[in-house]
Amino acid sequence: MAREVIGAAVLSVGDELLRGDITDTNAVFLSRALSDLGFDVRRLGAVGDDLDSIATVLRQTLNVARVVIITGGLGPTEDDLTRQGIAAVLGETPEVDETLLAGIRARFTAMGRPMTANNAQQALLIPSATAIPNPDGTAPGWLIQGDHAIAALPGPPSEMRPMWADTVRPALEGLLPTRVAMIALMTFGVGESVVAERIAEIIHADPDVTVATYARAAGVEVHITARGATDAEADRRAGEAAQAVRQALGEAVYGEGNVTLADVIGGCLAKDRASVATMESATGGMLSNLITNTDGSSQYFRGGIVAYSREAKAAHGVPAEIMDAHGLISPETAVAMAGAARRRFGAEIGLATTGIAGSDAVESHPPGTAFVAVDCGGRIRTRELHRPGSRETAKMYFAQSALDLLRLELHRKASP
Amino acid sequence: MAREVIGAAVLSVGDELLRGDITDTNAVFLSRALSDLGFDVRRLGAVGDDLDSIATVLRQTLNVARVVIITGGLGPTEDDLTRQGIAAVLGETPEVDETLLAGIRARFTAMGRPMTANNAQQALLIPSATAIPNPDGTAPGWLIQGDHAIAALPGPPSEMRPMWADTVRPALEGLLPTRVAMIALMTFGVGESVVAERIAEIIHADPDVTVATYARAAGVEVHITARGATDAEADRRAGEAAQAVRQALGEAVYGEGNVTLADVIGGCLAKDRASVATMESATGGMLSNLITNTDGSSQYFRGGIVAYSREAKAAHGVPAEIMDAHGLISPETAVAMAGAARRRFGAEIGLATTGIAGSDAVESHPPGTAFVAVDCGGRIRTRELHRPGSRETAKMYFAQSALDLLRLELHRKASP
Repeated sequence: MAREVIGAAVLSVGDELLRGDITDTNAVFLSRALSDLGFDVRRLGAVGDDLDSIATVLRQTLNVARVVIITGGLGPTEDDLTRQGIAAVLGETPEVDETLLAGIRARFTAMGRPMTANNAQQALLIPSATAIPNPDGTAPGWLIQGDHAIAALPGPPSEMRPMWADTVRPALEGLLPTRVAMIALMTFGVGESVVAERIAEIIHADPDVTVATYARAAGVEVHITARGATDAEADRRAGEAAQAVRQALGEAVYGEGNVTLADVIGGCLAKDRASVATMESATGGMLSNLITNTDGSSQYFRGGIVAYSREAKAAHGVPAEIMDAHGLISPETAVAMAGAARRRFGAEIGLATTGIAGSDAVESHPPGTAFVAVDCGGRIRTRELHRPGSRETAKMYFAQSALDLLRLELHRKASP
Repeated sequence: MAREVIGAAVLSVGDELLRGDITDTNAVFLSRALSDLGFDVRRLGAVGDDLDSIATVLRQTLNVARVVIITGGLGPTEDDLTRQGIAAVLGETPEVDETLLAGIRARFTAMGRPMTANNAQQALLIPSATAIPNPDGTAPGWLIQGDHAIAALPGPPSEMRPMWADTVRPALEGLLPTRVAMIALMTFGVGESVVAERIAEIIHADPDVTVATYARAAGVEVHITARGATDAEADRRAGEAAQAVRQALGEAVYGEGNVTLADVIGGCLAKDRASVATMESATGGMLSNLITNTDGSSQYFRGGIVAYSREAKAAHGVPAEIMDAHGLISPETAVAMAGAARRRFGAEIGLATTGIAGSDAVESHPPGTAFVAVDCGGRIRTRELHRPGSRETAKMYFAQSALDLLRLELHRKASP
């Protein structure tokens, strides 16, 4: 199928990138997102907070790319020069937009902070640009749709990503000659190489379907991109590939899209009108933190205890004789903690973690060992975990594994 | 002091970078290493496995940088085109170097593998280049030392890094006229625009000192880079600028380098042999999660309760009459929670959060409102917070603010 190819590029602005102080996750995210849409990404670039550099590289980039996404350099300081760089390349003059200025002022008022004079710079616009709303920060973005499409977005990923998804991506989709459908399947509990082996045949089955795997903080993502002449054709191809991947990976697949394990569990619990409580040792609050990142979690999350010591566990209902007989880091203590959490908060389900995320061995267990347990109205499941590495990596893995254990239990309950 | 500044750039080659399949850790490593040496890094760039693109971007880069490090594109396949790109830009013709070819052949023999014909490409050299030995792989690098210094290194970090350290860095150090010293100061509680205003004079005080601000998840970083003829001179200039920034920002500065608020608090608590416990509502476990990300936190963190409902708060020692009189989201309830946490876990210090991180108003408070409290052996502090935005953003801000409140209390205690 012959197809027009549209070149794209990503340009990142900030001295901190040139000094290697931070990793440019925005460039990775955007190059992936543009590729998935069907754009031909031809350049990634980073320049410092310097007007001439921004303008020079933007000009060079526009020679090879019809779509350019710029991140960074939209802040309130005199080092933030992305707006001026774009204006210089397009030969336009930025002026303060009163509507944007009012919005920024309102945001500062809502935060109870004074708006300093330099923040007015964030209200600048040029005639060919429209503002991209930024619900998570003060700096609006710029979107220019002419011979070239240029979008300027703030550097913080928590601001950039929603602005990309809500405004920039929909605007760019209209440029594409073919239609694209994407499905991301999230898996947990199987390594990336095993996932790749199990779906090897699907990866090469259809030239109009791209299947790729990515290791994420919570499992492996299988990303399907299908192209077609119409939305229906692209959707059908993506759906067929997704079905094949689900069959190959079975219950390791926990959801689609940006869904988290905590979201999936939240959906089940809300539907069943069931409730959950936690008792954590090794994860130190990470488990309840993940659960409460889901909107509406107050409906089913009763509460949690971080019992970081033997005394704290005993004081919150974990029998001393179990800890004495089996050790703090044991499946038996994990089960006792899950039961104690359930009773303590009057919840149907208790979820617990005990182990070592730090760097010293405890009770002869090497660092990176943990046990997680779920007590679902008396039905018990446990899992033994091993994850050497940094403290934060281990905590995240333990907490996600506890959520996965609960997911499988809820799944079995729903389809006995 | 008039001084030559030497521009540098890093260019990465590979289609996988443009698709966002991998994060370019080589660019981060090399830009950091070049900056630390004292080079002025001006561009980072990535291009695909395409001869014209490699040559075009290399030419553009040589216009602004005397030193260019290229990674990737040195493999044995026809997609590996970095050597051809450099040769095209310099107007030279690559030829097989018999010594290199013998070395590659010997490596394959040692591994007991046949050397395929395409591996001969890795023995190519141009007249102006010398080979950089690669003890960890088959592809030698190229080092060109003329008007420009150009180094080409393989993409795998395990091969690239030793080649950088053993051959390229020593060759580049001879180019440098000055020494560099860097200090990063971490602040909390003051927005980036206010920080920039307060240190505006310092930013422009000395041409040998660069001061920049960066918004981080936990506050604003002030980054100082000073140059001098000797290490001592660079250190002195950086130290003086850091002292001036500390005076301008006062107690907003909480530490140097990669330190977190939780680390700073952990250091104080361990020194004082004091202990802390938490009771969280709005932050849902994020607060204890941050505290327990610090190594050794089990020494001073007694435990925490995530009391997500009125009942859970009451069951864990928060007086019903206080919640009834002032509401769940109030400074009074936050103080009562901090006191309950302290008593419950037998800790000197209690820390609490109550508020709304979600999207619905509660008790007439808009989303993004919270109160945090510290009870330090009966000495009380509270702070009212407003942070509209996503649930996770709000939780992080509330939790960090609680840690900051405790930091200020510990600081006052230490210097009354």
